[in-house]
Amino acid sequence: MSDPIKVFLTEDEMPRQWYNLQADLPHPMPPPVDREGKPVTPDMLAPVFPMNLVEQEMCTDRWVDIPEPVLEKLRLWRPSPLCRARNLEAALDTPAKIYYKNEGVSPAGSHKPNTAVAQVYYNKVAGIKHLTTETGAGQWGSALAMACRLFGLDCRVYMVRISFDQKPFRKMMMQVWGAECIASPSTRTQAGRTILEQMPDTPGSLGIAISEAIEDAVTSKDTRYSLGSVLNHVLLHQTVIGLEAQKQCEKIGVYPDVVIGCAGGGSNFAGLAFPFVCDRIHGKDVRVMAVEPSACPRLTRAPYVYDSGDVAMMTPLLPMNSLGHTFVPPPIHAGGLRYHGMAPLVCHALREGLIEAHAIPQLECYEAAVQWARTEGFIPAPETAHALAAAVREARRAQDEGKERVILLNWSGHGLMDLTGYEAYLSGALTNYELTDEEMARSLKSIEGLPKPPGA
Amino acid sequence: MSDPIKVFLTEDEMPRQWYNLQADLPHPMPPPVDREGKPVTPDMLAPVFPMNLVEQEMCTDRWVDIPEPVLEKLRLWRPSPLCRARNLEAALDTPAKIYYKNEGVSPAGSHKPNTAVAQVYYNKVAGIKHLTTETGAGQWGSALAMACRLFGLDCRVYMVRISFDQKPFRKMMMQVWGAECIASPSTRTQAGRTILEQMPDTPGSLGIAISEAIEDAVTSKDTRYSLGSVLNHVLLHQTVIGLEAQKQCEKIGVYPDVVIGCAGGGSNFAGLAFPFVCDRIHGKDVRVMAVEPSACPRLTRAPYVYDSGDVAMMTPLLPMNSLGHTFVPPPIHAGGLRYHGMAPLVCHALREGLIEAHAIPQLECYEAAVQWARTEGFIPAPETAHALAAAVREARRAQDEGKERVILLNWSGHGLMDLTGYEAYLSGALTNYELTDEEMARSLKSIEGLPKPPGA
Repeated sequence: MSDPIKVFLTEDEMPRQWYNLQADLPHPMPPPVDREGKPVTPDMLAPVFPMNLVEQEMCTDRWVDIPEPVLEKLRLWRPSPLCRARNLEAALDTPAKIYYKNEGVSPAGSHKPNTAVAQVYYNKVAGIKHLTTETGAGQWGSALAMACRLFGLDCRVYMVRISFDQKPFRKMMMQVWGAECIASPSTRTQAGRTILEQMPDTPGSLGIAISEAIEDAVTSKDTRYSLGSVLNHVLLHQTVIGLEAQKQCEKIGVYPDVVIGCAGGGSNFAGLAFPFVCDRIHGKDVRVMAVEPSACPRLTRAPYVYDSGDVAMMTPLLPMNSLGHTFVPPPIHAGGLRYHGMAPLVCHALREGLIEAHAIPQLECYEAAVQWARTEGFIPAPETAHALAAAVREARRAQDEGKERVILLNWSGHGLMDLTGYEAYLSGALTNYELTDEEMARSLKSIEGLPKPPGA
Repeated sequence: MSDPIKVFLTEDEMPRQWYNLQADLPHPMPPPVDREGKPVTPDMLAPVFPMNLVEQEMCTDRWVDIPEPVLEKLRLWRPSPLCRARNLEAALDTPAKIYYKNEGVSPAGSHKPNTAVAQVYYNKVAGIKHLTTETGAGQWGSALAMACRLFGLDCRVYMVRISFDQKPFRKMMMQVWGAECIASPSTRTQAGRTILEQMPDTPGSLGIAISEAIEDAVTSKDTRYSLGSVLNHVLLHQTVIGLEAQKQCEKIGVYPDVVIGCAGGGSNFAGLAFPFVCDRIHGKDVRVMAVEPSACPRLTRAPYVYDSGDVAMMTPLLPMNSLGHTFVPPPIHAGGLRYHGMAPLVCHALREGLIEAHAIPQLECYEAAVQWARTEGFIPAPETAHALAAAVREARRAQDEGKERVILLNWSGHGLMDLTGYEAYLSGALTNYELTDEEMARSLKSIEGLPKPPGA
């Protein structure tokens, strides 16, 4: 087969192990710590996560076996196709070849189910019957709802109230999958009740929803909490994307010059990128590029610090680039990229010089997304649009330089549940947001007095 | 590879020709006629469709080459995977094997783009610059919008006003793909203006929207009209589904005992089924099953007559099972299955005993759809749910009989744009609709005095 648009793997060719970048890091990552700076121990995490996932979070083995029941569920939509964006290449008149890994083929429409099925499986093995989580726009909540149903666990999703009211379709998806979707703040938790007493009309926030989901998990029988990005084990589960992509590239005899993913919490980027970072560590000439919104410039502008994963500081302190846990993100449509922090492993890889980071403003991302939809057909999620915009920049550079260049990007999800952003863009109502130094300094006040990671 | 969940074809294995059932019919179909009963000639259709598609509509060759530029666009998402619903089989505890052809992988999320790209291509070759069409819920309008953009044609979609207002997301999809989406009735056509003068607050109807789209096409320069189902050439383009499925079945050494598709205008059913009907004509022991809603029982209860394809009688009379062109469908959520008529080729195949027809009520379809989502992950379109409900019936029969049985169904699209129906079902607000004999007799008054097809 010569130069096809799509490359499939058979199910037999699916990876049987996840790849753990920690095994290949030139220097080990600093550990998560408590507010006194003392490393977090497994038993401190046990009320929140099952012990098998806590162990996986701390594991430094290079390869981790994917359990057969997890593989079985992944096979409902995996392996995902590797595709070539020939129509976009032609429209850009570029000598670059643009390949994309289409993670939009999952039932929830994004890469999120890759870790959802793994996390639910490990919880099930540990005897857990119920999982809680939070969700903003609903992409993670719907993925976990589906995974819980597939394994027969109950799922309670605390959804930020304003999204619950304004975006009813993600909530309906969760209900189809049998999950209970609760507007947050709710009266079900102490955290929710306290907030509602103080601010009965609050639209809610991701920070509040996390607090409710964790409180629910630690106070309910046979219940744990599940997180959709940021943590090491979540990134690990996503590496199935990059491992498949490597096999697919090999099948058609190409190897990327540049690998691109958008970075919110970091798992989508890491999922495609880390197996290629491994190649880079072992001598391959490949650039690896994380793309974030200019409105939330963690990797490109924020300091490397110890900070909490949530507003209420219920999580341990993680070594990461952070805008401060009280950061109030601008209302960009890429809801998945509005987090204040970033996966510690991604931040560490950046400090080690293994990856590069770029920030792109909202309008350029939508321009790329619309061009994509009008040439390649598929409508990208606004998060994915950041990877596309970076790919377009690379393709233009290839054209300027008159050089062939193989670009590989993570097409992390479709935008069929996110069309209001497109409507705003097409009607001219969208604007760019650039975080000012003053705004950043203000939100960074929340980390004053916290311990500092070594070398920061 | 032994018994995988998914079977892929390479792009090289994609069919290069469409299959035309007309070549294998034991008796030829009656022709479309005018109101005097005279067969319609190509020149009568020329103002509405380009001549190459008119010729294809009347063609009786067994195999029709798929033009290379059409193949190239189809490859953006085809070949689609053939999948086995193992989790559902386990949940039903059935000895049946349930395979499904996943047409939800297209950019528009359904099978509709298969004919959209072909129709746009033929129009482009014929020098047409603009296409018009109508759409109800928006599935066809969005598919044509995408196809027009891929080939560089303009697209104007007349969308029933109540859907335009209540279902803004399909409209946004069309706009992302650069189409103009117009609420119908509109002031752009004489038909629309007349209706608006008489009924300024009308919610619109598919009949009015068809009238507007055809009027726009025949009165505008370099403009033609495009239809998403019913006609022979539309069914022809969809046979790529069944031809791929045959190759995929062959790859894993299975052959279906029963082939199932839901039937609205008939193209989704025919697309999967007709290549298997061909096998049946040539001696294969395979049952082929069209499934319609009990609320719109064309194949199971309506008479075989000559009737118009639209309320305003702008189309020729087609030989088909019809509830009468003034039929007002009950408000079931499967918007694509609420048509008053049915593809003449499907109706003829039924009369020839080549296929069987079943009607299933709404609640049973949603029950099957929710069970599907909770076992197989993917959320089905409400139309697709009818095929699923029939498959569940067949699987239960296999269990009762203790027999293995291979079931193949057309999973024609996902339901991510149709979640309100699920919400109504899960909240207990949905009901069944059965058409009474009196209601049917009333709507059939509209065909009194029209010519009758031979043998009717």
